Amino acid sequence: MDRTEPPEDPQSTPAPGSVRPGGRTARTRAAVLEATLAELVETGYADARIDRIAARAGVAATTVYRRWGSLENIVVDLADDLAVSIELPDSHTLEDNLRTVARAVLTLNEDPAHRAWLQVMVSAAVRSPKAREALSSVLAHRRDLTSVAVRHAVTRGEVPPGTDPHEVIRATVAPLYLRMYVTGEPVTPADADRAAAAAALAARAGLFVTRPPE
Amino acid sequence: MDRTEPPEDPQSTPAPGSVRPGGRTARTRAAVLEATLAELVETGYADARIDRIAARAGVAATTVYRRWGSLENIVVDLADDLAVSIELPDSHTLEDNLRTVARAVLTLNEDPAHRAWLQVMVSAAVRSPKAREALSSVLAHRRDLTSVAVRHAVTRGEVPPGTDPHEVIRATVAPLYLRMYVTGEPVTPADADRAAAAAALAARAGLFVTRPPE
Repeated sequence: MDRTEPPEDPQSTPAPGSVRPGGRTARTRAAVLEATLAELVETGYADARIDRIAARAGVAATTVYRRWGSLENIVVDLADDLAVSIELPDSHTLEDNLRTVARAVLTLNEDPAHRAWLQVMVSAAVRSPKAREALSSVLAHRRDLTSVAVRHAVTRGEVPPGTDPHEVIRATVAPLYLRMYVTGEPVTPADADRAAAAAALAARAGLFVTRPPE
Repeated sequence: MDRTEPPEDPQSTPAPGSVRPGGRTARTRAAVLEATLAELVETGYADARIDRIAARAGVAATTVYRRWGSLENIVVDLADDLAVSIELPDSHTLEDNLRTVARAVLTLNEDPAHRAWLQVMVSAAVRSPKAREALSSVLAHRRDLTSVAVRHAVTRGEVPPGTDPHEVIRATVAPLYLRMYVTGEPVTPADADRAAAAAALAARAGLFVTRPPE
């Protein structure tokens, strides 16, 4: 983050809880991320070009290259920007916390910008290893963040030691992604809750314990 | 199926168990399906054209239009052609049969032709409602066929009455599709078996019973 920024204009100060340092730098970032989404939706990932993104954002292409270095890096930053924060308290059961994770997938699916981003990436990942890597990295990062729910449950003894947190999160979100990005069926809060309940049940039964190969 | 065909050439008789009536008609179908896959892989679904498919197959475009009527119909027929037959005996437990279903998803993923077909369709479905409909229809048909495993289990009392067979199948295959088509992670037989075990456990616990909204 560039620390040589002029002081923030008080008029443009973001709401508490969403503060981000930087004024012009933050505005440049926002403009570039918005331009990237527009470029991706219009041309697809394979044909997206950083010089056109820079032109859409009204900044120099060199600024974009210096800050992000590659389209994949912008795409990952965009995904972080579109994500939602969720609370997964240790005082909640695993099923409650997995329900929060599953409902967050639905919330993101209802955000047109996030849905557009993910659709473009799923579509592109089939043909582009770089797109696959960017998408895979974003989703792995999100599993890292939500894994805390599983680690809490292991510590509390609600699920067996050795339970693989990523596998529990995958089981929770997979039926939702199947509907959203493969079969194209609608997803409802009931689907989210059912997926969370099934994943929690399987985790309690020890099905997601990672064992060394025999 | 055209029944005015000349008798089959014994040299080209397929192996027992894979017999399909028709000689020239069957060869035309095989050539068109093969040409469709090549066209889809090369140009994507959005740009695939029936006249080019006909030219690749060495048949008249009118023949293709008369027999299939639309690209979507050819794509659905291609998927049926690439599918594998599986046995889901009533004498097996639900978990055993779901493991067979999950392993079949892996088998299809190892077939380059089927993998190419499904990748093209997942990629196209994001932008094309017709592609989405064709893909959705193929997968719903496969769930219909594999639902017998769940219906057996309901009749035997292994899972509660009112268990939704499609939901059980979705839960079984979803973690595999997530890896194959969203995160791009490898899928292993252990992943298939774990998904089958988790879905069977949730089904036995009554999590897939469809209740009227309260």
